[in-house]
Amino acid sequence: MPCLSIDADRLIGRIQDLGRIGRGENGKLTRLAASDADKAGRDRLVDSMREAGLELRCDRVGNLFGVWREADVADLAPILVGSHIDTVIDAGVYDGCAGVLAGLEAIETLRGSGFKPARPIAVAAFTNEEGVRFAPDMLGSLAYVGGLTVEDALATIATDGAALGAELARIGYAGSDAPGFLRPHAYVELHIEQGPVLDREGLAIGAVEGVQGISWRRVTIEGVANHAGTTPMTMRRDAGRAAAQVIAHLHDHVAGSNAPSVATVGCIAFEPNAINVIPSRARFTVDLRDPDERRLRRMEAALDGFLDRLAVAEGVSIAVERLARFEPVAFDPRIVALIEDVAKRRGLTSKRMTLGAGHDAQMLARICPAAMIFVPSVGGISHNPNEFTRVADLAAGADVLLDVVTRLAGA
Amino acid sequence: MPCLSIDADRLIGRIQDLGRIGRGENGKLTRLAASDADKAGRDRLVDSMREAGLELRCDRVGNLFGVWREADVADLAPILVGSHIDTVIDAGVYDGCAGVLAGLEAIETLRGSGFKPARPIAVAAFTNEEGVRFAPDMLGSLAYVGGLTVEDALATIATDGAALGAELARIGYAGSDAPGFLRPHAYVELHIEQGPVLDREGLAIGAVEGVQGISWRRVTIEGVANHAGTTPMTMRRDAGRAAAQVIAHLHDHVAGSNAPSVATVGCIAFEPNAINVIPSRARFTVDLRDPDERRLRRMEAALDGFLDRLAVAEGVSIAVERLARFEPVAFDPRIVALIEDVAKRRGLTSKRMTLGAGHDAQMLARICPAAMIFVPSVGGISHNPNEFTRVADLAAGADVLLDVVTRLAGA
Repeated sequence: MPCLSIDADRLIGRIQDLGRIGRGENGKLTRLAASDADKAGRDRLVDSMREAGLELRCDRVGNLFGVWREADVADLAPILVGSHIDTVIDAGVYDGCAGVLAGLEAIETLRGSGFKPARPIAVAAFTNEEGVRFAPDMLGSLAYVGGLTVEDALATIATDGAALGAELARIGYAGSDAPGFLRPHAYVELHIEQGPVLDREGLAIGAVEGVQGISWRRVTIEGVANHAGTTPMTMRRDAGRAAAQVIAHLHDHVAGSNAPSVATVGCIAFEPNAINVIPSRARFTVDLRDPDERRLRRMEAALDGFLDRLAVAEGVSIAVERLARFEPVAFDPRIVALIEDVAKRRGLTSKRMTLGAGHDAQMLARICPAAMIFVPSVGGISHNPNEFTRVADLAAGADVLLDVVTRLAGA
Repeated sequence: MPCLSIDADRLIGRIQDLGRIGRGENGKLTRLAASDADKAGRDRLVDSMREAGLELRCDRVGNLFGVWREADVADLAPILVGSHIDTVIDAGVYDGCAGVLAGLEAIETLRGSGFKPARPIAVAAFTNEEGVRFAPDMLGSLAYVGGLTVEDALATIATDGAALGAELARIGYAGSDAPGFLRPHAYVELHIEQGPVLDREGLAIGAVEGVQGISWRRVTIEGVANHAGTTPMTMRRDAGRAAAQVIAHLHDHVAGSNAPSVATVGCIAFEPNAINVIPSRARFTVDLRDPDERRLRRMEAALDGFLDRLAVAEGVSIAVERLARFEPVAFDPRIVALIEDVAKRRGLTSKRMTLGAGHDAQMLARICPAAMIFVPSVGGISHNPNEFTRVADLAAGADVLLDVVTRLAGA
């Protein structure tokens, strides 16, 4: 295998260039889906795709594709790479864009090298991945894999009242292709980690083997409000203390399990919320995640059991609402192994990882073998102007993407 | 000792009568200090004091007195009984009023019996005990014992913008006596428990031996906000989980101590308070109470030590603000023993208790031997229309008050 490498200067130059588009007067980067800023970003991407000699395609929900299709293999299912270029409000420059532009970079490098692909290779930028302006997030890739009809997607109303269909038409990105028109042979997405693990452990590459399942619940504990000075500890039915026991138990149970499970209590409120009144009500959210569905179910059952015992022990009543539930997604083990293999051949350290949900790859996994390549994000920061990935780490990730595409599109 | 008893029908009749004064169109009872409703209540109390043959006195901060002063003992320090007749918003009829009217009942009963007191006996209704319209609570008794100057008391501004001095003049209860003009030989106050202990344990009388010390703090824990899905449990600096550990520890430490100590976390807030973000900040209040100052200090020190260890163990920073601190007040042990003794002689069960702060007796304890008699309040409910004390329990408490006054005012 020749040691072909991407052009790191060209890649980081394009990321920085795209990151200058969509800055407000305050200098903050905000390119919400199907906005004027998104149009300007798409226009720049289209220019780059054209320079790379790719065929431009846009589907009806605005997913944008640059396709390298040699005549002799034009009818075969393509290798698809990509991500998204829409951003959150006051964003960094890497989230999404790094994946699209690394994909473009890999294709351009392969084309320039004289490589003869055994099937088409295409790079995609999916519409409204962030979900800030239109709900749900990952809307474009969801529609692409058939999880949302084109009609429903186009009728989606923005937080500012506009319909997605009208906005796409207005900015000139309401394409004519049916979502799913390119049915991929495989999909590979490079992304910054959006978590601290690679950076903290000094590793170069994350080989993402799946998406965590998610269980969101809201727990309401009803006790009895009483005077903080006159009610002996043994006569209390303290909803706040019961909530604290749940939080402490959840952490200990999950952190002590040696599994990649995570549990988070992010929201809490007490009533009456007065310094000298024992809380009559405590309401809090529980976010449980695990890449293994059976283990996620066991976590849910363990929580239910703990709440049942707690209600008896503390003399409180406890109600649980399910707010959201998503089963885990397993990425394609062959592609995951391929990512590890090419990283090793390049002398790069790597680690198998699981997503905390929220990337287009998990949608594409419904219709083709898929996986993701993570590169380190300093401090795990994302969705923030301080988001930062070193050029060397980006280049290493793009080289791994290049090698994976080379192997997948090879003879 | 003759078995003299109060007139339970007269007592409950007066409580119900006073409880009809100050009802709004919605039927709710609200007699805030120095309001029109308070004036009407005071007028009714004055009528009853006059009917009982007592000398009426009113001091400059509106504290109202009915004095039984026989000529031969007129110059001696009086036995003072009483409480207050101002109420919270949407109040019950017992809080405060039961103590004033039981005191009046005891004096009237003694007078009617031909008893010859060895010193004057007086009943007091102190201004603004509840603290709803004017701050601080217990304002009248605080001024009476010299803890607040008359000028400062009268300049106190109500929540509705009126000055206390102007309001007392308006309702005709700006008296001419200097607060403290009657320097009591002893002070005894009957009050409903405002807690569940007597009712829960089926006891008739609480012999209150002191007031808990109070320590109020606000704790702020700073961790690091991170994504709930992508941050492994071992890499978290979760301010919310740290707060839960404090709450659980406080409860276990205090409930397991066999002391009458109480600890309450009544208020809490997480930031950013999002379901899928690990809390970066948790802020909560801690209310510690104990009748023993050394034990209260040990509780504070134990909390500080726990917070120090927690900060290291969880990688969070912790700041503590002191919001309030009151040392415990010890009531007069001879009067407490006397209450127990007379209860026993009447065949009434009793228990030594400690106040969760907030009664005029703790102010009077600064200038004379003082104690309190608690009667059961069903379910511990107070500051609520459902506040209820059975007639038999009220009568038993008033009989105990009668006997204590008889012994204190005896030859």
